[in-house]
Parts: sequence; structure tokens; C-alpha cells
Amino acid sequence: MVARPTVHDLHHHGDREVGAGLVDLAVNVRLPAPPDWLRAELAAALGDLAAYPDVTAATEALAARHSRPAYEVLPTAGAAEAFTLIATSFSPRKAVVVHPQFTEPEAALRAAGHAVHRVLLSPDNGFRLGSVPGDTVPEDADLVFVGNPTNPTSVLHPATDILALGKPGRLVVVDEAFLDAVPGETESLASQSLPGFAVLRSLTKTWGIAGLRAGYVLAERSIVDRLRAVQPPWSVSSLAAVAMIACSRPSALEEAEKLAIAAEHDRDYLISGLQELGIPVLGEPRGPFVLVRLPHADRIRLTLREAGFAVRRGDTFPGLSTEYLRIAVRDRETTDAFLRALLSAGIR
Amino acid sequence: MVARPTVHDLHHHGDREVGAGLVDLAVNVRLPAPPDWLRAELAAALGDLAAYPDVTAATEALAARHSRPAYEVLPTAGAAEAFTLIATSFSPRKAVVVHPQFTEPEAALRAAGHAVHRVLLSPDNGFRLGSVPGDTVPEDADLVFVGNPTNPTSVLHPATDILALGKPGRLVVVDEAFLDAVPGETESLASQSLPGFAVLRSLTKTWGIAGLRAGYVLAERSIVDRLRAVQPPWSVSSLAAVAMIACSRPSALEEAEKLAIAAEHDRDYLISGLQELGIPVLGEPRGPFVLVRLPHADRIRLTLREAGFAVRRGDTFPGLSTEYLRIAVRDRETTDAFLRALLSAGIR
Repeated sequence: MVARPTVHDLHHHGDREVGAGLVDLAVNVRLPAPPDWLRAELAAALGDLAAYPDVTAATEALAARHSRPAYEVLPTAGAAEAFTLIATSFSPRKAVVVHPQFTEPEAALRAAGHAVHRVLLSPDNGFRLGSVPGDTVPEDADLVFVGNPTNPTSVLHPATDILALGKPGRLVVVDEAFLDAVPGETESLASQSLPGFAVLRSLTKTWGIAGLRAGYVLAERSIVDRLRAVQPPWSVSSLAAVAMIACSRPSALEEAEKLAIAAEHDRDYLISGLQELGIPVLGEPRGPFVLVRLPHADRIRLTLREAGFAVRRGDTFPGLSTEYLRIAVRDRETTDAFLRALLSAGIR
Repeated sequence: MVARPTVHDLHHHGDREVGAGLVDLAVNVRLPAPPDWLRAELAAALGDLAAYPDVTAATEALAARHSRPAYEVLPTAGAAEAFTLIATSFSPRKAVVVHPQFTEPEAALRAAGHAVHRVLLSPDNGFRLGSVPGDTVPEDADLVFVGNPTNPTSVLHPATDILALGKPGRLVVVDEAFLDAVPGETESLASQSLPGFAVLRSLTKTWGIAGLRAGYVLAERSIVDRLRAVQPPWSVSSLAAVAMIACSRPSALEEAEKLAIAAEHDRDYLISGLQELGIPVLGEPRGPFVLVRLPHADRIRLTLREAGFAVRRGDTFPGLSTEYLRIAVRDRETTDAFLRALLSAGIR
């Protein structure tokens, strides 16, 4: 399918749905606050803030964590900055965004003056890449954005499907902002030096530091150099650099893996609960959130707000509609309370 | 004068001159660390980092501090980000940078693909605007960058000279990153809503938070909207937003004023010491740094490094040469030690 004339608010995100006193199932940040060890490291670094940021050590730490040379790593002020750097440093003849997905890549492309061709994956296919003819990425696309696992569908595409998008003269940008929430980081391309692929990562979701802006790009040297050339100087703060180093340590990676496994159990619990209410979850969710489709979802969302729960509306995502809701995976207690509220909201 | 073929490293800054164990007179950050009250506020905010940044309250605080409506204020990840936002959102027919000055505006313009016309102010005129015919900004310039007070010359241009640069169809960008270091903030245009002028400010230098990236733009609404449209989402971190609020309070402004007055005394002390050594300081310095010109400055700089002192080289600034050094104003003890090292370096 190609672009529809529907106007979406591409800058609408879960954080806008969260209000005072609401239980947040709208934002996909896993931890309610950074863990104590990370907070202690950040606090210790406050005394060094007079110095300009230097991301050399952070770059090396991230490179070592992914077994890549440092020149293939670019720290960014969150993955969001990476979208802008790509959009401003490339002049694509045909830029494609595979939807439904996080809307900022398309917003960044448009802000940079590029036309965007939308490829809309189908719910009939569980929003997976590839097997429906209409979902195909055009041959002449020279810049392609895809999310893995994809926000908001929670689909984890097989690495082979992502790799199949590659071709000479094309840059495939894989947004892996949620891939550290997948146990074993299966299907990740982060640790492979592949020409024509750029992988974006985020430390924000797993470590509860969305406010700090800490992400990075992994790509071949020429692409990293190109992005760095348009990155504002000192774009990554000293504290983000501290977090990059701290979160790249083996102990942090082990903890992330445990969090990812725990999140899978929590997700299974949420899915079972939804199914008991007769609400089927779409596809096979692999991220720390699930997508559901139900009639009158928009009305239910408002009723849930009145009951004190914020969930993410679906209609601002190209390819979705008011029938969709994205629900963050939380601990069982929160999920139980949410499911009770959902039942009271009259979903049957 | 127009652009010369000399190639300057526009990304060279004082932070690159600072090395382990060196006394830093190269970087223009006033405090060696944020003050305790600011550090405490930042520490308290570390627990809230899981939330995405929201600059609404910071924008209002900055607006109130400058008696302007909030829609005329755009918080940025340091003043450096503002250069990039301007460079990517405007398509100037003729972009002019008034040199010598901070090199990032020109770097940002070039990174965005714009040709840059350099206007080089003359040392014969104390690097002041206006009174030398060759210094004139071309009539057809539609985007003009000027610093006030100017880094590295420390010249504070009269507001009337800055205002004289304005004309219909032209945007004048006034980099006031150091203006909060001028007692009374005289000659500032920050609190005036002037069509065709954008004022950039920084909290970095006065408050010892270069690592945090906290600056802002003050401009008419249409310009602020235009910059915001190309700004990456959540570009300003939560902690930078906290600093913007904290540093806009009346108590902080009073403290800044006291620091600025103290810095003037420290600067006078430095200037006297230099003059005793027979080293004249250029112009009438009004910023927290001075520019000196002396034969063999580059050799002296290296000798000073060996003696444990880092000063800022001049030759990477268009319009200066290896004969110039920029020296940061520090406390008297540091200045005394520096002057002794300078004497030993054999400047006579």
C-alpha cells in the first residue's frame, strides 16, 4: 500500500497521554527510575559538569559492547537525534518508512524536506515484513526505515527479513531501540558490520533514563562520519556519556538480560489476562508492549483515563486506526489493576 | 574583507587544549563545577529521569526571566544546537559570519551546505563593528551571525551597532552566550522582541554546566516555530530543563550579577599583570577572557603547556593568527601562577 492522504500527528507520543495521577501504560520506558547503581554514577558525575562533554570513552565502551571498531559507533542524544542526523545528511531519491512504526523517522524526513513513501504492513499478516505483495518496499527506495522490534506492533522481524531489505545503493536504517528488551537480543544486527545498514539503539527504555537522551548509531565508517559531520557539537551530554559507559558493562548487560526475561513473563501474564477478557493481542509480541484491536478502543481509552490508567492511542500511527491501543508491559500488580479497570470500562 | 583561502579547523575549541594536569585557561567556563544549590537540584531530579523531557516549565521560566512571551523562547541543547537549527531551517542567499568569533556558527552553516561570506573585523579597530569600510556587512546578506560579547576578542558591541545590522528580509543572529557575564547585561537584546533578530543564550559558562548542554533562543514567534520544526524531539534533557528553571530564579540572577562583577575585578587584575609583562591586551575586554597578541605566541603557548598551563590558540579563528592567544579570566591565585609561568616562558 502507498501513502494515504490521512494526516497523522507524527509528534504524538505516549508521553503526551500520561497525566498527573494516571498509571502509565502509555510510555514504553521499562523502569520507573534509573537503578540505584546508575543513579549513583550519575550523581557522582554532577561535579564534573563544568567540562564540555567528551564521548571518546563512551564511544569505545559501546564499540566494545557490540564487538565493533569505535569508528563504527556514533553516540547520539537519544535515538531521536539519529533520525534527524540521517534525514539532514542524506538526500534520498526515494525514502521509505515501513509502517506502522515509531513516527519520528518520518517526521524527521519531512522536516528535512524529503518526500516519504509509506509502506503499510498489514494486520492480516500480523504486521510482518515480506509475505504480502502490497507490503513490498519499492525497488528504487534508497533509504528505508524499519523498526525491530517494531513500535507499536511489538513484532520482531527475523534478521533474515531485515537483511533481505538490503541492496546496493540503499541504506536500511534499523531502529533497534527496543531490542535490548528481547532476551538474547536475537535478530539484532547491532554487532554485525554490514555495508548499507545502520542500526539505532537506545539506553532509554531499559534503564529508565528517557530524560537523559542516550542512544547511538552503529554503521559502517563512512555513514558514521557523514552523520557526525552534521551533528551539533557536544550534542551528547556528559551524563549521557556516563550512562553509555555504565550500561555497557558486563554486569549491566547481565541485568538487562534478566530484566528482558522478567518482562517476557510479565508480557505473557498481560496477554493471558487480555485474552481472558476476550481481547486478542495482535501477532506475536516480542517487545515490552502489546498492540490490541477492539471496537470502540478510543472510547475505552477515555474511560480508562477516567479510571486512572493511560494507554497509548493507535490512531496517530499510519496504518492503524482508532480501533487500536498500545499497552505497556508492567509488573503483575499493575497489570491486574489495569485489567480490572479494562473490565469495568465495558469492553464486552 | 572577504573570505580568504586559509583553512581553519572550525571544530577546534578550548576543550581540546586542556590536558591532564594542566591548569585550564583555555576553556571559557567560569565555575569549576556547578554551585551546590544547582548540583542539589540536579541530584534530586535524577530520580525522575525515566520520564521523557518536557520543557514547558523551563520555557516559561526563561520567558519570565526575559519578560517575553513563552512562544518567543526555544530551549536548546546548548547554544551550539541553535546554530544547527538555524543553519538547517534557513536557506540564505548570502550568509555572513562576522569574524573573529566562535567558529561553530560557520561550521553549522557549512555542514548544512551553505556558502559562508566572512566579514573580518580589524585589529586596528579593536575588532569593533562598523567604523572601517572594509568591515561592512554586505547589503544583500540575509543571514548574519555576530557574537556579543564576542568570543575570542572579548569585545562588547554597543546594542546600537548590533541593531544597525538589522534590515528587512535579514535575520541577525546575536550570540549572547557570554552576556550573562557582563554586569547589568548591558547591550543585551535578549529582552527586546525585535523582528529580524534572534538572540542565543547559554547557561553553560556562568553556571559550570557545559556538560549538561543548556541554552536557548529568543526570537519572534515565527522564527522560534521554524527552529522548533527541525529540532529533534526531546532534544533538551530533563536535567538541562531543571537547570533552566533554577538559573532563571531571581536569586540565581543576583548571584550571576555578583559573579560577573567579581569577574571584572579578576579581569582587571589579569590585564594589569599582563601589561606589567609588556603584553598589551587587545581592545577593551568585557567578557570573561582576554585576547593578547605577541610575537611567537604559538611557541609561548607550547612552553606554557610544559609549565602546566593551557591557553587557547588564536590561529584557528578566522581573522586571527598564530600571534594571538585567548586567556580565560580566573581567580587571582591562578592568574598569579599563570603570570609567573608566562614570565618564565621568555616573552620578553
